[in-house]
Amino acid sequence: MEFRILHKNTGSRARVGRIRTSHGEIETPVFMPVGTRASVKALSPEDLKESGVEIVLANTYHLFLRPGLRLIEKLGGLHSFMGWDRPVLTDSGGFQVYSLSALRSISEEGVTFRSHLDGAECFLGPREAMAVQQALGADIIMCFDECAPYPAEYGYVADSVGLTSRWAEICMKTRPQGQALFGIVQGGVYPDLRERSARDLVAMGFDGYALGGLSVGEDRETRNRVIHEAIQFLPEEKPTYLMGVGKPEDILDAVGYGVDMFDCVLPTRNARNGTLFTRTGKLVIKNACYAEDPRPVEEGCDCYTCSHFSRAYLRHLFMSNELLVYRLNSIHNVYYYIRLMAEIRKALRESRYERFCEEYRQAQRESFTE
Amino acid sequence: MEFRILHKNTGSRARVGRIRTSHGEIETPVFMPVGTRASVKALSPEDLKESGVEIVLANTYHLFLRPGLRLIEKLGGLHSFMGWDRPVLTDSGGFQVYSLSALRSISEEGVTFRSHLDGAECFLGPREAMAVQQALGADIIMCFDECAPYPAEYGYVADSVGLTSRWAEICMKTRPQGQALFGIVQGGVYPDLRERSARDLVAMGFDGYALGGLSVGEDRETRNRVIHEAIQFLPEEKPTYLMGVGKPEDILDAVGYGVDMFDCVLPTRNARNGTLFTRTGKLVIKNACYAEDPRPVEEGCDCYTCSHFSRAYLRHLFMSNELLVYRLNSIHNVYYYIRLMAEIRKALRESRYERFCEEYRQAQRESFTE
Repeated sequence: MEFRILHKNTGSRARVGRIRTSHGEIETPVFMPVGTRASVKALSPEDLKESGVEIVLANTYHLFLRPGLRLIEKLGGLHSFMGWDRPVLTDSGGFQVYSLSALRSISEEGVTFRSHLDGAECFLGPREAMAVQQALGADIIMCFDECAPYPAEYGYVADSVGLTSRWAEICMKTRPQGQALFGIVQGGVYPDLRERSARDLVAMGFDGYALGGLSVGEDRETRNRVIHEAIQFLPEEKPTYLMGVGKPEDILDAVGYGVDMFDCVLPTRNARNGTLFTRTGKLVIKNACYAEDPRPVEEGCDCYTCSHFSRAYLRHLFMSNELLVYRLNSIHNVYYYIRLMAEIRKALRESRYERFCEEYRQAQRESFTE
Repeated sequence: MEFRILHKNTGSRARVGRIRTSHGEIETPVFMPVGTRASVKALSPEDLKESGVEIVLANTYHLFLRPGLRLIEKLGGLHSFMGWDRPVLTDSGGFQVYSLSALRSISEEGVTFRSHLDGAECFLGPREAMAVQQALGADIIMCFDECAPYPAEYGYVADSVGLTSRWAEICMKTRPQGQALFGIVQGGVYPDLRERSARDLVAMGFDGYALGGLSVGEDRETRNRVIHEAIQFLPEEKPTYLMGVGKPEDILDAVGYGVDMFDCVLPTRNARNGTLFTRTGKLVIKNACYAEDPRPVEEGCDCYTCSHFSRAYLRHLFMSNELLVYRLNSIHNVYYYIRLMAEIRKALRESRYERFCEEYRQAQRESFTE
């Protein structure tokens, strides 16, 4: 993996870059749709390409449990299995394992947990996370970390940062060849712990660095402070990835602090709930006001959905539980995110990022009165 | 609408033809996927076109109740509403209304029924069916008929045929301009009633003739006898449509008797249940034997699904309830039907239809041992 910075913002760490992988290039800042179980929900690889998606994320935890690694390995790895020939990033499984709370126990070696599918006892630790992600064959893989709960006491988070650093060392030592490996900075909302975590990982020399444990309940101001502070300890020449974020407004903030990569289930999950993103706010398609509305979801949007179908038709499909609507809504929302990222990069290149953000926020604030 | 016979089989009434409508041409024998609520389930108009679909059927009853006619008319009619610019056929709503059994009452004027959605009292008769189908704007519309239950006493079916003929006269008198109108031959399994129904309708001079009230529980032999007998009373120069049929084997039989048009929910419903059509029998994707199967659903099939995905991946998606699988399965099954119809036409043109049918049935009989 190679990362090049193509343009630096003045007055902030924000930048435009390009990541080169063996499955193709990614322009950053980039948004990665989430394909939890080797499928970005309701969308085909072709749909993703037509929306301009350059990289997708898949979840190690889910794939580890079903269909299992041996199968994916046998079918030629994740790219081949899911029919996606562009870059893939896999998480380490840690985040999902911790969210099982009552079902897992943590030791120095890793985490013992029970499958949410059949209750079978499973184990993941740093060595296992490397082996699993090697089998999956993603272009970018993540260290096994502990994502402390929020809120958490200083003492707990401090111990957790120590464990995450020791696990990162094991990941580094047992990392597979030919896959880029990112370290994950933890430390909760405590500046000195974030600093310690970042310094520990940077000393090991990863291909990129993620900020973990955010967007877990803290407020916007706190999250932005943590990002802003932690990123100072990360090398500018490596890509920075803010895990699990987020809303368009959150992405705008984080890009301003120098974040290059994002992932979130929001565009696809909202799509399935009938909530569509537009520049002037969210459009809830089931609302009666759209029953006879002949306009597309968003005027000027040239996604497949907006090019072919009216709000009235989408509402009809949604009210009738027609399967087509989940795909059409998802196409629009994913395209919205991808287009937003392209506009972010353009604004950065043209040195008008601050104004772009202001205008975006202003349009969102104006009530959606249509 | 214009119908031309391009090739006649020797030794049977089977033929290849072409229907010309203002939304394009249809080669017959043709299969029409069912888009009950203005959407062929899980498929976009683009998916249908890529599968070679030339005409779809939509259900008047469902659209009448939701989203309602006024809305579809306001949005420019069914073609515009659903983003489909090729031909559409609508049924008259009669069949669905009768299947409500306990919720409806029949009079000389039509049928009073309660909506399955909200219990509201509704009425459909021959005049209403014409007005509704005019608002929907399909290329081919159907007479309002009474589809007698099966089995039914001779006396009931005889009365029903009389009513259907009187309604057909009203439909003919109140028919909209610019839409082809088909009469529906009823008469259950009684040869003389089928004959009477056919003669009544033919005397009125419809653009085409449908065989109704079949595939409702009768056995294959009975159905084939009824088709074979009834079709003799229909003019060869008009298209014949066998409503709601059917399985590939049933279509092969009926084409042999001279049927030109078919519709059925089978390919799309089976797709959603994970049952896939292949030349060597049905493939039930959830079966454990496909868990690690790297082959496409059907070797040699060039649908999008078979060109890109393995049985193992489809099974994984199906077991995980991933939305994508409903679309991928539907693409394969619809393509299977469309390709079968193309092969039927080719076999007819090459005067080898009987052999084609024998080979097809032979391949289906051979157990699916893979």
